[in-house]
Amino acid sequence: MSKQSVQIQRGGGCCTPISVAALDPQAAGEGAAVFKALSDPIRLRLMSIIASAGEQVCVCDITPHFEVSGPTISHHLRVLREAGLVDCERRGTWVYYWPIPQRLKWISELLSVPENAVT
Amino acid sequence: MSKQSVQIQRGGGCCTPISVAALDPQAAGEGAAVFKALSDPIRLRLMSIIASAGEQVCVCDITPHFEVSGPTISHHLRVLREAGLVDCERRGTWVYYWPIPQRLKWISELLSVPENAVT
Repeated sequence: MSKQSVQIQRGGGCCTPISVAALDPQAAGEGAAVFKALSDPIRLRLMSIIASAGEQVCVCDITPHFEVSGPTISHHLRVLREAGLVDCERRGTWVYYWPIPQRLKWISELLSVPENAVT
Repeated sequence: MSKQSVQIQRGGGCCTPISVAALDPQAAGEGAAVFKALSDPIRLRLMSIIASAGEQVCVCDITPHFEVSGPTISHHLRVLREAGLVDCERRGTWVYYWPIPQRLKWISELLSVPENAVT
């Protein structure tokens, strides 16, 4: 099983929010790697386009949203994929992307705060 | 009002999750900047120590958790503060830190997914 698979499995809802317990170095490394993938404005927009589409998204429909080259978009999509946030499949000429909601849920819960902590 | 203040105010709960709607370039830039602050393992651990403490944390109690120098810790804490994730106050010799839960809630909600999206 790849390291990425382990992380995704872990992302199924078992993590403790940072507002409850401090992270050990290993967990911090795993979380930081995902945040790094989302730390670029183009990648975060790409992630939001794929996550909100409600269906698999053809890269041919993604590229026109950006003023950067196709290869640059492909590079950013690869970073998202390596972080376990999206997956993809080639069909004929085009590659189609979809989000991995377990992974988003994991990092969302990692950052969650109790309702009574927000005034 | 500073740009950071505007972002924190916005973080009060008004953002739409990326699983619901794609981000515009400005929102993506704001979100990516916060994720960048969390994209380093040391900073993410620092954030978790401060967020989980339940009280203001003296920098003198943070530094012993890490094998890097005090100035390095101070640098990382400054990055977290500039991202609006923590704030601090000097009292005598030491600086005390606390989390800004509205900011954590904002980025947590940005990444949240509907329960029925996670199988």
